[in-house]
Amino acid sequence: MSDPLIGRLVVCGVGLIGGSFALALHAARAVGHVVGIGRTPAPLERALALGVIDSIAPDWPTALAGADMVLLATPVGQADRIMAEMAPHLAPHTIVTDAGSTKRDVIEAIYARLDAQLPRVVPAHPIAGAEKSGVEAAFATLYQQRNVVVTPLPENDPEAVSVVEAAWQACGATVRRMSPQEHDRVFAAVSHLPHLLAFGLVHDLAGRANAEQLFSFAASGFRDFTRIAGSHPEMWRDICLSNRHALIAELDQYLAELAYLRALLIGNDGDALETLFAEAREARNLWAGKAFPT
Amino acid sequence: MSDPLIGRLVVCGVGLIGGSFALALHAARAVGHVVGIGRTPAPLERALALGVIDSIAPDWPTALAGADMVLLATPVGQADRIMAEMAPHLAPHTIVTDAGSTKRDVIEAIYARLDAQLPRVVPAHPIAGAEKSGVEAAFATLYQQRNVVVTPLPENDPEAVSVVEAAWQACGATVRRMSPQEHDRVFAAVSHLPHLLAFGLVHDLAGRANAEQLFSFAASGFRDFTRIAGSHPEMWRDICLSNRHALIAELDQYLAELAYLRALLIGNDGDALETLFAEAREARNLWAGKAFPT
Repeated sequence: MSDPLIGRLVVCGVGLIGGSFALALHAARAVGHVVGIGRTPAPLERALALGVIDSIAPDWPTALAGADMVLLATPVGQADRIMAEMAPHLAPHTIVTDAGSTKRDVIEAIYARLDAQLPRVVPAHPIAGAEKSGVEAAFATLYQQRNVVVTPLPENDPEAVSVVEAAWQACGATVRRMSPQEHDRVFAAVSHLPHLLAFGLVHDLAGRANAEQLFSFAASGFRDFTRIAGSHPEMWRDICLSNRHALIAELDQYLAELAYLRALLIGNDGDALETLFAEAREARNLWAGKAFPT
Repeated sequence: MSDPLIGRLVVCGVGLIGGSFALALHAARAVGHVVGIGRTPAPLERALALGVIDSIAPDWPTALAGADMVLLATPVGQADRIMAEMAPHLAPHTIVTDAGSTKRDVIEAIYARLDAQLPRVVPAHPIAGAEKSGVEAAFATLYQQRNVVVTPLPENDPEAVSVVEAAWQACGATVRRMSPQEHDRVFAAVSHLPHLLAFGLVHDLAGRANAEQLFSFAASGFRDFTRIAGSHPEMWRDICLSNRHALIAELDQYLAELAYLRALLIGNDGDALETLFAEAREARNLWAGKAFPT
């Protein structure tokens, strides 16, 4: 049997994202041994019991000894601190990558904390739904036919980029390269803003005096619209703050759209409303038919 | 065999809602004969071919001859015109009900057009997802374990209200009574506003120069958030205009929520954002666990 792609993998933050990466690589026989490390012992012990990881490291020197790759899969707000902690113990050959939903801030932390390691630190972001969180939600096929955006640094060693891309491909994902700036603008629009809007709507309604009555009449449309309001609060706090400039720009553009819709309602303009709804329906169904063929 | 609850039912507008009502009553053996009537012949012919209706009426006198119940299941913007057309041909014993998503405007049309028939005109609204439209999407179990809101008029004959409620119960639905005002406020919040928000987001993104790139990175969260933007444009134009006073009030309250969220982003207030997200997640998951037990 040939050697696996990654001999020893360290997963920092063994939740849905990190746990599913480990399971997928195990399933593809692309990893030899997975070490888990994290803030608190309980999730690591569950991950070990579930067979998601093969061992738990009590500290960074233990984790990084002989490591071929480290995946950071924590909320992005922790990236800077974790990189600072791991930096003194990193061997020159170890590849570091991440799964953060924002890229410019993670890259800022990379330049600040891992500047000695730049050829082998490859930022990435797997695009996989994560409204269920925790290692119990992890599964080996999470990344199949999903996009993984890789945003290489100019300083990256092409071989390190190849290994990161090969690891995600072994998970069944499609790798797509972008600049970090482009990444952060695109995901502010199609992911971060919708999450903010869904959290906001549920929060608005839940605070009403008649909240119980309102929820008792909410149906499947409301369920689907608000599904992402079930997402992890700390993770989304970090994403919204890390990417807040792009997110505010998207929010402002959306507020202009809502102001236009409000004017159509005030003006009782049925023709313009119907045209707008029809254009939205066509665009949405065209996209969904391609992205999620049934 | 005993007589069915409804001997002859007229369905005006044989789409998802009207078609599923006919199929459910047929399945429950609660109807003898279903007559379809509508604006255009093609959907009626498909409904006949699919066995959703038993015959097609070319005009109101034919449709209403011997009718026990009429269900209006057209977009609400047509209610006034249709009631005016049917009024001269209604027999005193025929019960009229509707499936409109807004109630105050339908009731205005009832008082204007069916004032001779008030004891037997019972407004109602089945709460069933309708992002797929047309008779091809109709199915007999659409209303099982769904709510149907009945908003009786003070002038209603209690026996007519009972028959309408019994018909919906025969479809497997739970009947809940409300005032029309309360109905329209509640559904502006939990249904009409989310539809407007989803249509608006897709329309906003679809108009961008990089729309294709944006959609190519949209994932399952975006799919679920925007599912209701696949809804019927004419139906939703009518709903938004019919209920625009309550809808604008809800939109304004939501705009205040978004202004608050924007201030938290500008102020980089992670604690307040996380608290808001956590409250929203808890409220959403508590509701979804009760409303959609798995």
